[in-house]
Amino acid sequence: MSETPWQKNLINIEPYVAGEQPEFDDIIKLNANENPYPPSPEVRKVLDHFSYGDLKKYPSIDASPLREAIAEYYGVKKENVFTGNGSDDVLATAFRAFFNSDLPIVYPDVTYSFYPVWCELLKIPSKTYAVDEDFRINVKDYYEPNGGVVIPNPNAPTSIGEGRDFIVDLLEHNRDCIVIIDEAYADFGKYSAVELIDKYDNLVVTQTFSKSRSMAGMRVACAFASPYLISYMDAVKDSYNSYPMDSIAIRTGIASINDKEYFEQTVNKVIATRERVSKALKEFNFKVLESSTNFLFATHPEHDATEIFEYLKTRKIFIRYFNKPRIEQYLRITIGTDEEMDAFLSAIENFLS
Amino acid sequence: MSETPWQKNLINIEPYVAGEQPEFDDIIKLNANENPYPPSPEVRKVLDHFSYGDLKKYPSIDASPLREAIAEYYGVKKENVFTGNGSDDVLATAFRAFFNSDLPIVYPDVTYSFYPVWCELLKIPSKTYAVDEDFRINVKDYYEPNGGVVIPNPNAPTSIGEGRDFIVDLLEHNRDCIVIIDEAYADFGKYSAVELIDKYDNLVVTQTFSKSRSMAGMRVACAFASPYLISYMDAVKDSYNSYPMDSIAIRTGIASINDKEYFEQTVNKVIATRERVSKALKEFNFKVLESSTNFLFATHPEHDATEIFEYLKTRKIFIRYFNKPRIEQYLRITIGTDEEMDAFLSAIENFLS
Repeated sequence: MSETPWQKNLINIEPYVAGEQPEFDDIIKLNANENPYPPSPEVRKVLDHFSYGDLKKYPSIDASPLREAIAEYYGVKKENVFTGNGSDDVLATAFRAFFNSDLPIVYPDVTYSFYPVWCELLKIPSKTYAVDEDFRINVKDYYEPNGGVVIPNPNAPTSIGEGRDFIVDLLEHNRDCIVIIDEAYADFGKYSAVELIDKYDNLVVTQTFSKSRSMAGMRVACAFASPYLISYMDAVKDSYNSYPMDSIAIRTGIASINDKEYFEQTVNKVIATRERVSKALKEFNFKVLESSTNFLFATHPEHDATEIFEYLKTRKIFIRYFNKPRIEQYLRITIGTDEEMDAFLSAIENFLS
Repeated sequence: MSETPWQKNLINIEPYVAGEQPEFDDIIKLNANENPYPPSPEVRKVLDHFSYGDLKKYPSIDASPLREAIAEYYGVKKENVFTGNGSDDVLATAFRAFFNSDLPIVYPDVTYSFYPVWCELLKIPSKTYAVDEDFRINVKDYYEPNGGVVIPNPNAPTSIGEGRDFIVDLLEHNRDCIVIIDEAYADFGKYSAVELIDKYDNLVVTQTFSKSRSMAGMRVACAFASPYLISYMDAVKDSYNSYPMDSIAIRTGIASINDKEYFEQTVNKVIATRERVSKALKEFNFKVLESSTNFLFATHPEHDATEIFEYLKTRKIFIRYFNKPRIEQYLRITIGTDEEMDAFLSAIENFLS
């Protein structure tokens, strides 16, 4: 492989061979972007039939059978797939593997709150570009030279998703650094950049089983990139914690990815509920951003966000509030079941009347 | 808390709020220090009764119920316990949290092969002290000023364990740095330093469920230290990957730690087999180091180690060989079931005749 400018940003290591989480039963929990539906019933079968004695042995060091299943689902090669202990593990591994430039990495100013945390821990210089007044990312900001790019698509907590043109534009103007597209919520949206990994050898796409596959409790996530970049992520993994995925996470992950029908049903149910709730909130005069995720980001022109937030708590309904500049009048509402959302809308109606 | 010299070595981060592994069925696998017995039958019950729908929710962020169970078992406070995704995750977290000095950290020259890997990844300067000709660690080497100490006790792959006097001597001469005692194999030995964490506020003890509790496939490990040091490990965890332990790892870990009777039976069986095999190997004229672990470290004065290693492979028996200075004539033999070890001894007898 020929030397490209972004390769100097790869980490220089030798591969090692070898929000408030209330806990009551009767609450409506719309604050962690968890899926309201259980994982695929095939996950139950894995637990039923798992040969527990096998736990005495180490798991597959690269979760190989899970990588194969994910690769088959997405129509890529196994060598294009990295797996890890949840999206944070995968993203932290990617940050360390790929963001080693003296130039700052760049990401939007309203975004996932872990990016600056990793930059601090891993001593990665960083710089943010403010989203515009409609909370949209201005792709032209990212035309400037930088040490790497990380963009969540859809973005969180804004819920806004961008399409193929945006991602291609971003990639075309960032050939000299690694570009990470964090697709934690992409299954609820319209576009995934996984299809671009063959075309752009500096692209890394991350996804998680925690949201669309209802597996937050199981810690399963993955990344897609060229085999060359994946080998750097594996080198970082093997230099830090070789076996991040346990044998049951691997097996339940496979069961989940193989049950396409259940996955699509569940995602479609969440999307249908989202659209219904979005419409209802607008009828209550909320401004609701157009969501490509399993949550809504909304504000009311006449009512303080914290008042709504606190009122809902008294009704045992927990949503998410961020006391941060620009979004301090917004509320993030995870899409629950239709029943849960009816209770939410009824509480909102009571609050407003 | 008053300032002590080792505190300047603590990582400066803001806590985030909120071998060869052959895969055939008919082999005898004595190469990964796995336990030959299954985990506690209580682990099976957890899988049977686990409410799989709960996997849609995130796990406890600090694996709180598991920390409580471990604390109760060891007679310490929950605040003295950290948990992680296997010993490597726990040790890597501790290295990052505690080894931030300009002085090199120190560890023995024959030891666990991951220590230098973490030092390289995390840019920690390091220095080794050679074990003596009997593979014993000379505690006086560690009297010199340093940036931190990590000692595996028992040591691997030598299998040699040191007692209380050694550890106290080490701690008394290392008050200005953090001392990590890596007790991956301590349950098969005679001494654990967990009892010293109240007395030495710079002591961190790590343990794993992978060996003595037959849970390698489940990725469960822990550390013991003062609540102050544990809070730094939590800060590192929460800045990197907040949820390293999935809901099933937490629940099966609790089931394992609570089944003391099964644990003691299993460990005692492994120890009895170890003593029998050690004696038999000595009768074959092997030199066998005195083991406090679930493996033996042995050499034969008349036969090349690689020849024995390769011969055993032809008999589908896999042990571990390290092509490293000083130990290149030694073999590491994991203790399997009595049946497996009989097959091993019979193969050795054939080789020698």
